[in-house]
Amino acid sequence: MPRPTHYVTQISMCDAQCTVRSGPEQEECDDKMSNDPLVVFTPSGKRGRFPVGTPILTAARQLGVDLDSVCGGRGICSKCQITPSYGEFSKHGVTVREDALSEWNSVEQRYDEKRGLAKGRRLGCQATVQGDVVIDVPPESQVHKQVVRKRAEAREIVLDPSTKLFYVEVNEPDMHDPSGDLERLRSALESQWDLTDVTADLHILQTMQPILRKGDWKVTVAVHLGDRENRPRIMNIWPGYYEGTVYGLAVDLGSTTIAAHLCDLQTGEVLASSGVMNPQIRFGEDLMSRVSYSMMNAKGAEEMTRAVREGMCGLFTQIATEAEIDKALIVDAVFVCNPVMHHLLLGIDPFELGQAPFALATNGALRLRGDDLDLNIHPSARIYLLPCIAGHVGADAAAVALSEAPDKSNELVLVVDVGTNAEILLGNREKVLACSSPTGPAFEGAQISSGQRAAPGAIERVEIDPATKEPRFKVIGSDLWSDEDGFAEMIATTGVTGICGSGIIEMVAEMRIHGIVDAPGLIGSPEQTGSNHCFQDGRTYSYLLYDGSADGGPKITITNRDIREIQMAKAALYSGARLLMDKFGVDSVDRVVLAGAFGAHISTKHAMVLGMIPDAPLDKVTSAGNAAGTGARIALLNTAARAEIEATVQAIHKIETAIEPRFQEHFVNASAIPNAVEPFPILRSLVTLPEETFNTGTTDTSCGGRRRRRRA
Amino acid sequence: MPRPTHYVTQISMCDAQCTVRSGPEQEECDDKMSNDPLVVFTPSGKRGRFPVGTPILTAARQLGVDLDSVCGGRGICSKCQITPSYGEFSKHGVTVREDALSEWNSVEQRYDEKRGLAKGRRLGCQATVQGDVVIDVPPESQVHKQVVRKRAEAREIVLDPSTKLFYVEVNEPDMHDPSGDLERLRSALESQWDLTDVTADLHILQTMQPILRKGDWKVTVAVHLGDRENRPRIMNIWPGYYEGTVYGLAVDLGSTTIAAHLCDLQTGEVLASSGVMNPQIRFGEDLMSRVSYSMMNAKGAEEMTRAVREGMCGLFTQIATEAEIDKALIVDAVFVCNPVMHHLLLGIDPFELGQAPFALATNGALRLRGDDLDLNIHPSARIYLLPCIAGHVGADAAAVALSEAPDKSNELVLVVDVGTNAEILLGNREKVLACSSPTGPAFEGAQISSGQRAAPGAIERVEIDPATKEPRFKVIGSDLWSDEDGFAEMIATTGVTGICGSGIIEMVAEMRIHGIVDAPGLIGSPEQTGSNHCFQDGRTYSYLLYDGSADGGPKITITNRDIREIQMAKAALYSGARLLMDKFGVDSVDRVVLAGAFGAHISTKHAMVLGMIPDAPLDKVTSAGNAAGTGARIALLNTAARAEIEATVQAIHKIETAIEPRFQEHFVNASAIPNAVEPFPILRSLVTLPEETFNTGTTDTSCGGRRRRRRA
Repeated sequence: MPRPTHYVTQISMCDAQCTVRSGPEQEECDDKMSNDPLVVFTPSGKRGRFPVGTPILTAARQLGVDLDSVCGGRGICSKCQITPSYGEFSKHGVTVREDALSEWNSVEQRYDEKRGLAKGRRLGCQATVQGDVVIDVPPESQVHKQVVRKRAEAREIVLDPSTKLFYVEVNEPDMHDPSGDLERLRSALESQWDLTDVTADLHILQTMQPILRKGDWKVTVAVHLGDRENRPRIMNIWPGYYEGTVYGLAVDLGSTTIAAHLCDLQTGEVLASSGVMNPQIRFGEDLMSRVSYSMMNAKGAEEMTRAVREGMCGLFTQIATEAEIDKALIVDAVFVCNPVMHHLLLGIDPFELGQAPFALATNGALRLRGDDLDLNIHPSARIYLLPCIAGHVGADAAAVALSEAPDKSNELVLVVDVGTNAEILLGNREKVLACSSPTGPAFEGAQISSGQRAAPGAIERVEIDPATKEPRFKVIGSDLWSDEDGFAEMIATTGVTGICGSGIIEMVAEMRIHGIVDAPGLIGSPEQTGSNHCFQDGRTYSYLLYDGSADGGPKITITNRDIREIQMAKAALYSGARLLMDKFGVDSVDRVVLAGAFGAHISTKHAMVLGMIPDAPLDKVTSAGNAAGTGARIALLNTAARAEIEATVQAIHKIETAIEPRFQEHFVNASAIPNAVEPFPILRSLVTLPEETFNTGTTDTSCGGRRRRRRA
Repeated sequence: MPRPTHYVTQISMCDAQCTVRSGPEQEECDDKMSNDPLVVFTPSGKRGRFPVGTPILTAARQLGVDLDSVCGGRGICSKCQITPSYGEFSKHGVTVREDALSEWNSVEQRYDEKRGLAKGRRLGCQATVQGDVVIDVPPESQVHKQVVRKRAEAREIVLDPSTKLFYVEVNEPDMHDPSGDLERLRSALESQWDLTDVTADLHILQTMQPILRKGDWKVTVAVHLGDRENRPRIMNIWPGYYEGTVYGLAVDLGSTTIAAHLCDLQTGEVLASSGVMNPQIRFGEDLMSRVSYSMMNAKGAEEMTRAVREGMCGLFTQIATEAEIDKALIVDAVFVCNPVMHHLLLGIDPFELGQAPFALATNGALRLRGDDLDLNIHPSARIYLLPCIAGHVGADAAAVALSEAPDKSNELVLVVDVGTNAEILLGNREKVLACSSPTGPAFEGAQISSGQRAAPGAIERVEIDPATKEPRFKVIGSDLWSDEDGFAEMIATTGVTGICGSGIIEMVAEMRIHGIVDAPGLIGSPEQTGSNHCFQDGRTYSYLLYDGSADGGPKITITNRDIREIQMAKAALYSGARLLMDKFGVDSVDRVVLAGAFGAHISTKHAMVLGMIPDAPLDKVTSAGNAAGTGARIALLNTAARAEIEATVQAIHKIETAIEPRFQEHFVNASAIPNAVEPFPILRSLVTLPEETFNTGTTDTSCGGRRRRRRA
């Protein structure tokens, strides 16, 4: 097997052996400097001249072309597959003859028989240069593959995982020169892979000796490549060439749900995604009630820590079972979460987060081991927690910043992660500001009289007919509007059970558009509104959306108190954003990104009618889905992104809304629908909002004084 | 309180502020360069000029004088006590007036009232320079105190522990500039103590917040200062100024006993020393039987690992109870042990150590955490295992090398750690060689017909009268010889129960000196020897040392088989040493150090008569006591020694006796008493050894063929 025994040395000798150039403009120079064949790699365009007989893998390494190999060029792993191109390439100034590469050799033949080599493919470590040649490196043969991500505006994910596989041949022990098996394994990694200063976990020391002998001193090791706190470290070891892979978890630890993506660290592929309810819910639905629980109960924080860790272990078992993998092969995990969950996960009492000045125990990124957190994955799996931005702006917001990268945007972008506490980022390449705002759970359907979670039977969309003022709606689980034929059959099993967050937003916005709610937030009388869905309900009016009482179902009404809840929630959201705009010195933003599962379901037009978000062209308001989860996945798959987000978070300007005098003023203004002072010109060019008010002097239209700090 | 708020900055400005000189020859220069008062520190001799009003602590820091402080000059810790001297100092060229230092201030007064300041002492952080002054830094005020060690030839121990205490004042949290409590604590450590990149254990994060608040943002932290694998790390935190200390353990994990010294890491003092039997003894007395146990029993190695860790935890509880300290304050521990114990402690199956090529899982030093080894001390106590030298030459031998420092010796020194496996080091500044030799347990009284462990009742010394050839002996527990008056009363409670290792060595040597045993190792007949203590015992003769049968006690006899056991043991020891001498290219050594508890008890003259050790002047043969334990203590108290011994071990030339052809030849020669070929001229100038042999042709006098590999 014509493998370079010490290609590392060859790489360091690269300058002496080959001429490295990029692009055809260098061609003449290439030609003049040597008579060796020219090798051009695509898509990189890297090119150089190499002596006849040089393996393509060697040429790639010398040129710094990204061509994978786990076995180090021994013809075992097949990761270095390449596709030679033949014929005339005027672009590259090269003519490639049929015999530009060596004939198939026995290694390729054997590999093809055993596993099949796709037509046109060669093994880069076996095929050697015989004449000028153009070599295409297919995406799957690249180490730093790009991980597929659909959204054009979001950052690319280039695979660069913490842990990689390396096949090595280790010297046997020698009584004349005694050294430990680990030390010989380390020197093999150094001489064969240029990996220096590698250490090993204790459990590797405990299992390594029989594995080395079983593999006849040939083993595959998974090496965590190290980070700012840790040296490179052997995580797993297998006898011979290991066909498998190692895994990582991107975990979004929310107050309500814990969601995880299981990723293949060699391909970046998401193999399974799964979620469970956060078992802490039994200690309190929202975060502040959990903080209270820890204050009221001596061992409360400990109990909650145990609960969330157990929940996580359950999730990991579930996801590993689904993907049919061994949990012990999960060697890396990235966690994102809000500050309270962050502390509870770590076993830190969140007491201080419940009161000003909301001091975090630590805001920095954390690098831990799986057993530090009692996780049931690889015992010394490397755990990475993204940094927190501030006492109310957690690692989840940092993950959103990583995913949505406002710091890399030329446009001024407002990123809003809508939850029971909204995290808000505003920025561009110049600077990024962040704050959180206590929206409360109204956007999730909580504290709304007919509200419910988004689940089958929940009203999720609402329209009011401009002419008849009759409402119609859609229910989760049905594609039909409530006034369409077959709707009743469609919802026969679920019924109409309530109204969820996106439904209530559309409902209130439609009521505002059609003159049923006025700008200050009062529901009018049937006379004022011209809708007999309005009815007197104590001192105010309510709106009957759906009456299922004939069939034993609920009456779904919107009370004036519901309107107040939505007003407060959206005012909190808007005034946070507006405060950041003040601090940035702008009155408008170029685009708005709605993150969070909720953001994916709301109608941007209706959100803007409500005045939840600043006035912007509707096509500039996009949904990022679970951006925090995506951020976790980026940090998992691309280790460089970890240092990057740590620097970004450090540079973010943190604004504490609680101590900003203007926040209160913005909040009062923003409690009007859409806003008492902001003009919203783009919105008003699209929608005409009635100007009349229903205030008869008997009801209180202000809700600015009822501010709470709530989080979830 | 006149404390320098940022003395670190002052240090960096030092060159501009003061004139740093050493020794009186610089005096003229000092005088010329400034009119500021001159401060001379003793014993360092460091001197410099400082503006009036400079605290002595500040002057000391600027000059690099070793003056301790935990509170950073706040007048709290009293660690910086100094003694000013007054009058004429011609040596220093200084006259010190009575007002050379500032008056006692209120801080000193208060301190004196509360705790008492010894006469003549001042607090270095309070007393300020007013005129030329000579300041003595007493040993207890030095950070790098010298730890008392009695033996002149052994290396000094300069205190430089892994973990030190620092008092800091931390900024309070600020909503305008949110940061974690840990981050503010870190910046306090950086600005007040110049400690950078400090991290914290998870349990610190879990407990830190209430402690910071309880201490009103003043805390004392114990910081592990980091090592080649770890960043500096906060290990403990206390509110306010912490009066206590933190502790370290130096553990000598032997096959038979586990011994530990508990040390105060601030003073270097040994607070308690204790030992327990190694609970692994139930799996086999010697190491090879433990290796066999692990081979024969599927979970054998695991069982033994659990046993030794439990035994260790028991010992730690015992030693902490004895010293009345909290085990959780034990933040550092250094372990030394032979390779089999090393592997069993770590949970590595010692299988490979039981067969050629005796491959260690790892020979490097290890840095672990307490919980990696299930220890019951500080959960993340830093654990340091010294490197192993080779498959038979463990971390215990490395510790002996650290303690006895052959690599720092001008003389060629042979260091022998006598146990059931002897580790042998030979070297000087030029180079050091190491090997191990399987002496077996005969030197511990095992495999000797009347042998026993060294315990009350055991014969430990023997003399034979040259004229009468009558033996007399001493027994452990009695100061009298057996022929002295009162001996019977003295031993009434213990009786005479057997003969221990040092006893059997003296016995055999005395028998050789007085013509009862010949050079090949045969006991002669009463006729041949002229001693009626010899008697026919099967095919050979035995020697009756003591007959207690009249009182129901034992008959203590030395059989010819006992002589054979001692011959084999001593031949193994000598031939290992001789092999190293060959490799070094010498025929003699300058001095011999006997390490190990056993080494402390044997008579050097008798050892040399036996030919255990090479011929050398008797005053050049010294005992080092438990040098392995001392080495552990050095590595515990002086962290620089860790890197040093790692480099030393790397440089040691390892000799594997099993594959050295000359070893066998040396062994055969060395089975004669003292040796068949070596002349031993120094010995023979002191003692005349009879030349007659007792071989009648009927017995086998060779024992060279019966070589075993045994270890303990």
